[in-house]
Amino acid sequence: MSDNKVKIGLVGFGTVGSGVAKILLENADSIEQRTGIAMELARIVDLDITTPRPVEIPAGILTDDLDALLNDDSIDIAVELVGGTTFAKDLQIKMLKSGKHVVTANKALLAMHGKELYAQANKSDRCIAFEASCAGGIPIVSAIRAGLAANNINRIYGIVNGTCNYILSSMAGNDDDFATALSQAQKKGYAEADPTLDINGGDSAHKLVILSALAFGCDVATDDILIEGIENVSIDDIRYGKEMGYTLKLLAIAEKNEAGKISLRVHPAFICSKSALAQVSGAFNAISIFGDAVGETMYYGRGAGMMPTASAVVADIIEIAMGNSQPLFNCLKTEPVASALDSIDNLVSRFYIRLMVTDAPGTFAKIAKVLQEHNISISGILQHEGHDVNNTVPAIVTTHPSRQKNITDALSDFVKLDSVGAEPVCIRIVDIPEDDIDD
Amino acid sequence: MSDNKVKIGLVGFGTVGSGVAKILLENADSIEQRTGIAMELARIVDLDITTPRPVEIPAGILTDDLDALLNDDSIDIAVELVGGTTFAKDLQIKMLKSGKHVVTANKALLAMHGKELYAQANKSDRCIAFEASCAGGIPIVSAIRAGLAANNINRIYGIVNGTCNYILSSMAGNDDDFATALSQAQKKGYAEADPTLDINGGDSAHKLVILSALAFGCDVATDDILIEGIENVSIDDIRYGKEMGYTLKLLAIAEKNEAGKISLRVHPAFICSKSALAQVSGAFNAISIFGDAVGETMYYGRGAGMMPTASAVVADIIEIAMGNSQPLFNCLKTEPVASALDSIDNLVSRFYIRLMVTDAPGTFAKIAKVLQEHNISISGILQHEGHDVNNTVPAIVTTHPSRQKNITDALSDFVKLDSVGAEPVCIRIVDIPEDDIDD
Repeated sequence: MSDNKVKIGLVGFGTVGSGVAKILLENADSIEQRTGIAMELARIVDLDITTPRPVEIPAGILTDDLDALLNDDSIDIAVELVGGTTFAKDLQIKMLKSGKHVVTANKALLAMHGKELYAQANKSDRCIAFEASCAGGIPIVSAIRAGLAANNINRIYGIVNGTCNYILSSMAGNDDDFATALSQAQKKGYAEADPTLDINGGDSAHKLVILSALAFGCDVATDDILIEGIENVSIDDIRYGKEMGYTLKLLAIAEKNEAGKISLRVHPAFICSKSALAQVSGAFNAISIFGDAVGETMYYGRGAGMMPTASAVVADIIEIAMGNSQPLFNCLKTEPVASALDSIDNLVSRFYIRLMVTDAPGTFAKIAKVLQEHNISISGILQHEGHDVNNTVPAIVTTHPSRQKNITDALSDFVKLDSVGAEPVCIRIVDIPEDDIDD
Repeated sequence: MSDNKVKIGLVGFGTVGSGVAKILLENADSIEQRTGIAMELARIVDLDITTPRPVEIPAGILTDDLDALLNDDSIDIAVELVGGTTFAKDLQIKMLKSGKHVVTANKALLAMHGKELYAQANKSDRCIAFEASCAGGIPIVSAIRAGLAANNINRIYGIVNGTCNYILSSMAGNDDDFATALSQAQKKGYAEADPTLDINGGDSAHKLVILSALAFGCDVATDDILIEGIENVSIDDIRYGKEMGYTLKLLAIAEKNEAGKISLRVHPAFICSKSALAQVSGAFNAISIFGDAVGETMYYGRGAGMMPTASAVVADIIEIAMGNSQPLFNCLKTEPVASALDSIDNLVSRFYIRLMVTDAPGTFAKIAKVLQEHNISISGILQHEGHDVNNTVPAIVTTHPSRQKNITDALSDFVKLDSVGAEPVCIRIVDIPEDDIDD
């Protein structure tokens, strides 16, 4: 890497790859003006070298020969944008071994094999930079790594999946059911043809692995995370929640309690409709991070898309070109987190419970008795008059802070009651706290 | 600066200085764990070495002898927290000349003498880091410098003065007049005994100088900025604005148009009450930044206070300790901005105009005629029935986008009308646009 010129090789010339090429070519002058470094896009590798892309690239740099990149010692920074977790893993290791710094947006790979890749990066004295892996264009990785470096981070609440947020926003805004909202999202390009990894919470969990590894400095895996998706969310509950002052979001949550125990969760959550995160609608992402010195900070922007994701990839390229590669993985320790993880049974949360009950004398007394037996205190009750042909009616109870274990036990007891019909619906209510900074 | 130990000297042991000492001492272990570097607070200099501070410091490091810091070659990073623009300037130059990197929260100094200081830093091959100078604990400087480095930034809208935001939030929330809200803010410690620099917009302008220098890479001065404060804001206008769907905020605004012309302004602005910035209440800050690749991003947090500001100071210390000092001022060019500045007369904005008019036939026709003569199109009108003892009534007009020059001319014509009483009130309406990123 010469002082004022850096050569970049790109593998994967799809949507994000085209965006990266576009920025490197079109914003080259302004980037050089600000950084004093000329960024040269020297090589693009893709199996498909014929389909036209939305960017005009210099003649001769596009090839389907990976070795043309790997064996080119003049290339300083290699960008992996092929996705997946097998070929891509192999590729990143080859890139590192050939002496190149790696920039990637591959959250699934980092969540699954991060430990091994960081170790190889360390061994090769090169870095893996991954700003684009979390929340697209929002510079959240650098915020945690550098901006909040003085802090012990103790809480993260993130809307980190644009597909889910788009679907939940549509359901709430248009009073649509899940299937309709999903199909709308697919039509508009906000959801994949196979949306499984988005809607089942898996993608959010990948991002939470990366964010909490950065925040807590330990080796987190998706297995450490309680994951619940939005597939079973009913428009009824969004409606009832709204009536009670709540908005439903899929949240990625990391909380570290005073004893140092860490709770990692991805699940649908009712949050106060007046809170800042509740205002985040459509495909946007937002992440709220609490540090012991800074208090609450929040970051908002586009979590996906060609240019926003490319913006983050190129930010990493620039940081590495300027010599700021070391810190990018210094904070990623590979120490196991298991001992610090708190059991989900110990989670203390508020809960929204909807039961379909027979409209008959004594029904609510039975429900209240079950709650009392499990030491669960009622915070709010909502039962509208009127009932359907089966003489059942939805009865909604919100609780004061209760242990997850007690709630789980109560739910099993509810279904044993004759007067309770279908499986109860249970959604956690997350009260995002005010920070305790005394300014 | 050895590889794994960095010595820090601190000048100014007031509120923020105490916070910095607290973090360096209390979070030392976790910072070392994440960065691999031990941060040693080696020296604190203050004229007052007897008053107890809210942090326990190691024996022997507090002194009133500045030379004990300046002449200590083992100190790598010097933190200037004395404030002011004369002694502090001299001090920073001495720190740089003695081979120390400088970390500062001194926005006034940077806004006034940044050019000279950055030149000295360049000459001494040291850096001046100033994350804490803008928006307290929010890592906004690093977001612009690094996180959004791939982008051409074209819009900044910031709530960057907590005192003003607290006052305006109180006025709106409690229906208080300005004097009452100010006195409340002073009682609660959100406003200084002499609040002039906050409420007249000067402090926001200092921050806008720094942010726009970073964003546009040119030498901006407070003289380049249109500055209007909140001293004359009336609760009446906050009320009428609310009725029309607007919330009043003091905004720091930088806009670069397609011809490359830059408009820099600090003034009270009506923004849509549903917008994200309108939700920012109390002493919090938030800054919305638009980049050509990333679209809109927003950053939110505490803009002042002991620990949030100290969080930003220590973030800079850590970045420098890790060797990331170069980029901090690479993007601060000292090229004059004057040629790129757009005249305020050319500003195109929407406006809220309140006239106190005599309730008599033909009055509104005269007002409408003046607007028509100046090519100003009416967007909304609000005139409540009823009138005071002088038979005057407030008539409010909001406009479609209009040139500032035309508005200014129309305002002079209004006061010439017999039927218009007191000086008209004119407040800009800022429609924060949706970004045009096609995701």
